[in-house]
Amino acid sequence: MSTFGKLFRVTTYGESHCASVGAIIDGCPPGLELSPADIQVQLSRRRPGQSNLTTPRDEKDLVHLQSGTERGVTLGTPIGLLVKNEDQRPHDYSETDLYPRPSHADYTYLEKYGIKASSGGGRSSARETIGRVAAGAIAEKYLKLAYGIEIVAFVSSVGKIQIPSTVASPDDVDNDDAQDALSEEFRKLLGTVTRQEVDKYPTRCPHSETSERMTKRIIRAKEAQDSIGGTVTCVIRHVPSGLGEPVFDKFEATLGHAMLSIPATKGFEIGSGFKGTEVPGSKHNDPFVRRADGSLGTTTNWSGGIQGGITNGEDIYFRVGFKSPATISQAQQTVQYDGTPGELAARGRHDPCVVPRAVPIVEAMAAIVVMDQLLIQNSRKTAASLLPPITTLPPSMVRTKSSHAA
Amino acid sequence: MSTFGKLFRVTTYGESHCASVGAIIDGCPPGLELSPADIQVQLSRRRPGQSNLTTPRDEKDLVHLQSGTERGVTLGTPIGLLVKNEDQRPHDYSETDLYPRPSHADYTYLEKYGIKASSGGGRSSARETIGRVAAGAIAEKYLKLAYGIEIVAFVSSVGKIQIPSTVASPDDVDNDDAQDALSEEFRKLLGTVTRQEVDKYPTRCPHSETSERMTKRIIRAKEAQDSIGGTVTCVIRHVPSGLGEPVFDKFEATLGHAMLSIPATKGFEIGSGFKGTEVPGSKHNDPFVRRADGSLGTTTNWSGGIQGGITNGEDIYFRVGFKSPATISQAQQTVQYDGTPGELAARGRHDPCVVPRAVPIVEAMAAIVVMDQLLIQNSRKTAASLLPPITTLPPSMVRTKSSHAA
Amino acid sequence: MSTFGKLFRVTTYGESHCASVGAIIDGCPPGLELSPADIQVQLSRRRPGQSNLTTPRDEKDLVHLQSGTERGVTLGTPIGLLVKNEDQRPHDYSETDLYPRPSHADYTYLEKYGIKASSGGGRSSARETIGRVAAGAIAEKYLKLAYGIEIVAFVSSVGKIQIPSTVASPDDVDNDDAQDALSEEFRKLLGTVTRQEVDKYPTRCPHSETSERMTKRIIRAKEAQDSIGGTVTCVIRHVPSGLGEPVFDKFEATLGHAMLSIPATKGFEIGSGFKGTEVPGSKHNDPFVRRADGSLGTTTNWSGGIQGGITNGEDIYFRVGFKSPATISQAQQTVQYDGTPGELAARGRHDPCVVPRAVPIVEAMAAIVVMDQLLIQNSRKTAASLLPPITTLPPSMVRTKSSHAA
Amino acid sequence: MSTFGKLFRVTTYGESHCASVGAIIDGCPPGLELSPADIQVQLSRRRPGQSNLTTPRDEKDLVHLQSGTERGVTLGTPIGLLVKNEDQRPHDYSETDLYPRPSHADYTYLEKYGIKASSGGGRSSARETIGRVAAGAIAEKYLKLAYGIEIVAFVSSVGKIQIPSTVASPDDVDNDDAQDALSEEFRKLLGTVTRQEVDKYPTRCPHSETSERMTKRIIRAKEAQDSIGGTVTCVIRHVPSGLGEPVFDKFEATLGHAMLSIPATKGFEIGSGFKGTEVPGSKHNDPFVRRADGSLGTTTNWSGGIQGGITNGEDIYFRVGFKSPATISQAQQTVQYDGTPGELAARGRHDPCVVPRAVPIVEAMAAIVVMDQLLIQNSRKTAASLLPPITTLPPSMVRTKSSHAA
Repeated sequence: MSTFGKLFRVTTYGESHCASVGAIIDGCPPGLELSPADIQVQLSRRRPGQSNLTTPRDEKDLVHLQSGTERGVTLGTPIGLLVKNEDQRPHDYSETDLYPRPSHADYTYLEKYGIKASSGGGRSSARETIGRVAAGAIAEKYLKLAYGIEIVAFVSSVGKIQIPSTVASPDDVDNDDAQDALSEEFRKLLGTVTRQEVDKYPTRCPHSETSERMTKRIIRAKEAQDSIGGTVTCVIRHVPSGLGEPVFDKFEATLGHAMLSIPATKGFEIGSGFKGTEVPGSKHNDPFVRRADGSLGTTTNWSGGIQGGITNGEDIYFRVGFKSPATISQAQQTVQYDGTPGELAARGRHDPCVVPRAVPIVEAMAAIVVMDQLLIQNSRKTAASLLPPITTLPPSMVRTKSSHAA
Repeated sequence: MSTFGKLFRVTTYGESHCASVGAIIDGCPPGLELSPADIQVQLSRRRPGQSNLTTPRDEKDLVHLQSGTERGVTLGTPIGLLVKNEDQRPHDYSETDLYPRPSHADYTYLEKYGIKASSGGGRSSARETIGRVAAGAIAEKYLKLAYGIEIVAFVSSVGKIQIPSTVASPDDVDNDDAQDALSEEFRKLLGTVTRQEVDKYPTRCPHSETSERMTKRIIRAKEAQDSIGGTVTCVIRHVPSGLGEPVFDKFEATLGHAMLSIPATKGFEIGSGFKGTEVPGSKHNDPFVRRADGSLGTTTNWSGGIQGGITNGEDIYFRVGFKSPATISQAQQTVQYDGTPGELAARGRHDPCVVPRAVPIVEAMAAIVVMDQLLIQNSRKTAASLLPPITTLPPSMVRTKSSHAA
Repeated sequence: MSTFGKLFRVTTYGESHCASVGAIIDGCPPGLELSPADIQVQLSRRRPGQSNLTTPRDEKDLVHLQSGTERGVTLGTPIGLLVKNEDQRPHDYSETDLYPRPSHADYTYLEKYGIKASSGGGRSSARETIGRVAAGAIAEKYLKLAYGIEIVAFVSSVGKIQIPSTVASPDDVDNDDAQDALSEEFRKLLGTVTRQEVDKYPTRCPHSETSERMTKRIIRAKEAQDSIGGTVTCVIRHVPSGLGEPVFDKFEATLGHAMLSIPATKGFEIGSGFKGTEVPGSKHNDPFVRRADGSLGTTTNWSGGIQGGITNGEDIYFRVGFKSPATISQAQQTVQYDGTPGELAARGRHDPCVVPRAVPIVEAMAAIVVMDQLLIQNSRKTAASLLPPITTLPPSMVRTKSSHAA
Repeated sequence: MSTFGKLFRVTTYGESHCASVGAIIDGCPPGLELSPADIQVQLSRRRPGQSNLTTPRDEKDLVHLQSGTERGVTLGTPIGLLVKNEDQRPHDYSETDLYPRPSHADYTYLEKYGIKASSGGGRSSARETIGRVAAGAIAEKYLKLAYGIEIVAFVSSVGKIQIPSTVASPDDVDNDDAQDALSEEFRKLLGTVTRQEVDKYPTRCPHSETSERMTKRIIRAKEAQDSIGGTVTCVIRHVPSGLGEPVFDKFEATLGHAMLSIPATKGFEIGSGFKGTEVPGSKHNDPFVRRADGSLGTTTNWSGGIQGGITNGEDIYFRVGFKSPATISQAQQTVQYDGTPGELAARGRHDPCVVPRAVPIVEAMAAIVVMDQLLIQNSRKTAASLLPPITTLPPSMVRTKSSHAA
């Protein structure tokens, strides 16, 4: 469905070639200073045409606020917003009419709805993500102002080229000591990377040498009329402890849901991820330590800031895999809707690699998840704080203080 | 929160040492023959104590149906069910009272709620999954009877030991032809594996040689008072095309949400998963082909049965990563709630590896997702079928027939 | 919150003086022919300025479809739509700035959000209902085409002037035989009234003599710079049996929710309503009868088409009470936000009586409720129909046929 | 569906003759002292057999807490609870097997589900309300402790016999001054009535003279093997201002939804209700006044404590209409499922009037609504409080203080 969230609720509409794409954001806290510029910055980062690595269509994508603010301040009522579809050009795609494009959504949309947009897979268009990015920018503004939360995503791999993140070790299955560990360099990157640094690179990979190799890889895909996928890693810093709603809306479950709803995603990992299935418990467990402010932290962070589905105050980091784009210019052997075999070649201009543009989308969905979980936990904490103190329980069952809590 | 699903809704309650754990399943189709035995079989597969690889606690876990059926047939009203907690033994864990167990949920539950169960992380207990498994068994029964849907999960890796699934190729980043491909043997396994075969192995890994290596790996972890994680792969066969609710409740997004809500999960991949980020589009795209019955299928299935968030009628397969269990018997350096450093050693009996027991949980959550998405799509299809036929659209925009549709 | 419905989901935005008001309608069946004119007709009926009984502001209220249709047919994707706020004139209301208007939402909006729109009660504006009416028009079009469902609302009372609906009887509390009964004339009205007939009267009361008296009553209120309330009665005909989702989403509960969310509503009655609390069971019960087509119907219809929260195939009728509008031109003694007593007189033009304009809003919300409940029940019926027939139950427990079912 | 609420979520199961009825309460604030006795008191008030006015079945209805508390304190995790069905006696109803009981849910349940419980209308049984009452008792305990909120319901009418609530006036439609006004006596009753006073009367009508007349009316219905309905009025005192979630989840809309989901309800009125449609705006508006503590209140309270869908801090009062029970002992002319005409007479023991027992059910649903709305508003207020103060808006747009706010 087209609504996400329980208290901070984002509902989107629109596809490639209709009048506009947009969203209604319901549940934004009142009293937040908000201007179109706050939203535009992320829409522009999402926009194609920013380098020779992405498609040259310039869509402009100016946001128009419709409601929910007055004199630049949110009222707490739903924020309606939209971006007009200026570059509609539906005929660019007309030759594909006889063919369901392989690994595209043409076929499944037709199966699902019994009808499909002439442009193909309707809402599976990347243009659908505009509403998400706008909503995420609003959430981010709040999270930054109220909690100092920072959300930074970056491209961590393109094809097989990836930022070195672990200290290599021999793949010795009989030797538990030979496990990979997160490298110091990568931990530092997670802890400090900024959007400014990320945007210095056309690949949005803030690791100079890797970025150069990625650039070559993307150009090679472009020249081959082919495409290549990649991964986006995202870190969320300064999230209070206590967020996440077991058992079904654990923080990572909701985050995974959000990420896997982005077009072209194939995988999601939180913290140590699949690597964490290989590291023995004795090494994978994150020992607690007392921080300078008296609160508890962990020395390592394989957990990725989440334990038992609830944030623990450490940095949250996760990785999202995007498949190689289905739209390629080279000819493909496939069949038409009626089963007739033939050769299909896409026309028009296409991104050989979408991960650089996916960066603000990942950030947006992350912001929406944090915002919603924060509002729910805020409610519980406020409610609990109004009760008389509990005096009948053993001390270990009751929290006495925490500097991290939401 | 403790409810999952929109039309087929599962709400669970209970933790390790309360009176019972249970669930309310709302929205089950009426007229389904259902006996406790239908549920018990999966609860027993989930139960510990079935081999020397898992913890010897025998919890029995007999299900008690409370409502929603009469004379062995579902009424369409909510099905209440519960399993008593016979083996409560809360004192086994008493020594941990001063310490938040590393990478457990003790600390985060206390941060979230300001209070925690004496047993520790409350609902983060594996025992919480009983309600899910029971609900999943009901969904499965329906899906089998009404659609012939088969859901089979198995252990695909333990630590670094995994079922060979791809044909190896040199890791040559400059050579796009050198990509891994799913091996014939693994594709055949996905297409044919049954629960009976899976249960022949104590590891629930239906690959004889790999299972033996896994067994040794688990025993080694046990002997070292350590633990080891692994992955579960699951295949869902005979799912109709058209399931999945873009844009936020795409099939894989909901499936990922479901899986990442299972305790100890760290990652989720659909179809080609993270591997799909490395394979160029020209090779990753699944070409369409006409099947014998006239419908369209795909020759390869990197998509994992889902395109644009919607099922295409091919087998759905995915992989879930489970971290190495946090509870280990060897001593760990950590701190107490008040920050005092010390050494913590868990007592009692613990699973050195939980993935074999996770198999029915993964199956259950998969069944719940399919069931819910099926009900939603059923509604749409029935609604659309009552409208007059559309005569004004070009043929490529309208589906004329499909043998796969829900 | 600003979303209503589970499968047919309406999300609205907008207040009096922002750029536009609008809605996203998610879950509309695909393949429905839909043009702006289908929506405009009801928006125009909602619009003020249609007679000397309502406010002369002419807002035009042209709907702009943004998405979800192509070549005049719904795609099954979200339908975005909006109506621009052309007549914004925020300064009309500027003098009220110091005063919370009595029985308006100025005060409560400020209490709730800590901030309010300069125009006052923000979303409590009647203008908010535009999104509802547009969504309802879409639902209605579907319901008419697919089921022949008819929804007609009309003004049943203004102040104390009401359409005669019962046969009068002495108010003899000791005589159970002396109960009121629904008059034949009113039953016939419910069974046959059309929108065309309703719109013949400026009051939208399709009872000529009563309408004339209402007109005088409204004019008197206008002349006194006062206002007067009234009730709207609505009938829904040809609804299939089986709709309604016990126990919390019974048909009348959801319908009541929908109606009581309309601005200025104070009460809701289904079928016999409060009168049904006075009629003894022996007279209030609706005896069953066999209809010509073999299905069961009821001879009387005190139930209002709903029994046990589920539709029974008879006409659904209900009544909604709208309070006298809070905005009046005569001076009122009250206090300012800071507690200073004073006299407040509204400026501008105001409806002395809103019930004629409420008619299409009531119809719209009714359509949305029927649509949503129908989609949910469709899902169940389709799911149940795919199961093997039940052979083990006594005949009285199993339905064998019905000509009414959804 | 069987779940109510967004943050405080109640899910129920069970019907008359299954193993148990029960509920899962999700989202209860942690740290609340809660014992079975807190719940039992309201279950016992709901229980039949307490006077000669109600059915003599003694069901006992002992609550069994299953989870969510430890040592008498809530953990914040779901509270599972159940009440066993001891008095099952399904055969009492066996003769009705051929007949759908008039105005019962037998027919509609069969139409909806295609199958029904042998006892008849399944979940339409009054026994279903046990889960609600238990959940409401938990909510009430919290609301009392944290906010001092008081919820008291009482029987305001039986048949045509009602507590005098307005000052009579001639029904002169041409004279606006001749409107009814809420009597001083009734306002005082609303402001001060307690459950203790209500329970002094077998009718639960805390107006001595009226109660006596009601008693006679009920006995007369009983003797006539007939039944009689009535209304329950409920007041909620000390609710903070600011609760209610426009536009669809306005306070009265959610409250109405809750009430109309109770079996046998036919109508709902908030504040002045249908009477408010007759009183001109100039008299119906509630003028503001400054209270002793500096906050604003209203001199009258036609609004019933709600304006624009949001609570204003005044007492909330509403009225719910319950139809005369459908189950009567006298013979009824009707038809069998197959259309054969015949005479049906119910056996067993039945309540001639259910409104006294409905009192705790109304209180429970009211508590659940207040609780849920409070949690949602708490979240918003906490979120807004963390933002920097707004300095750019005119003073009338920003709230500076309030002694009522949640």
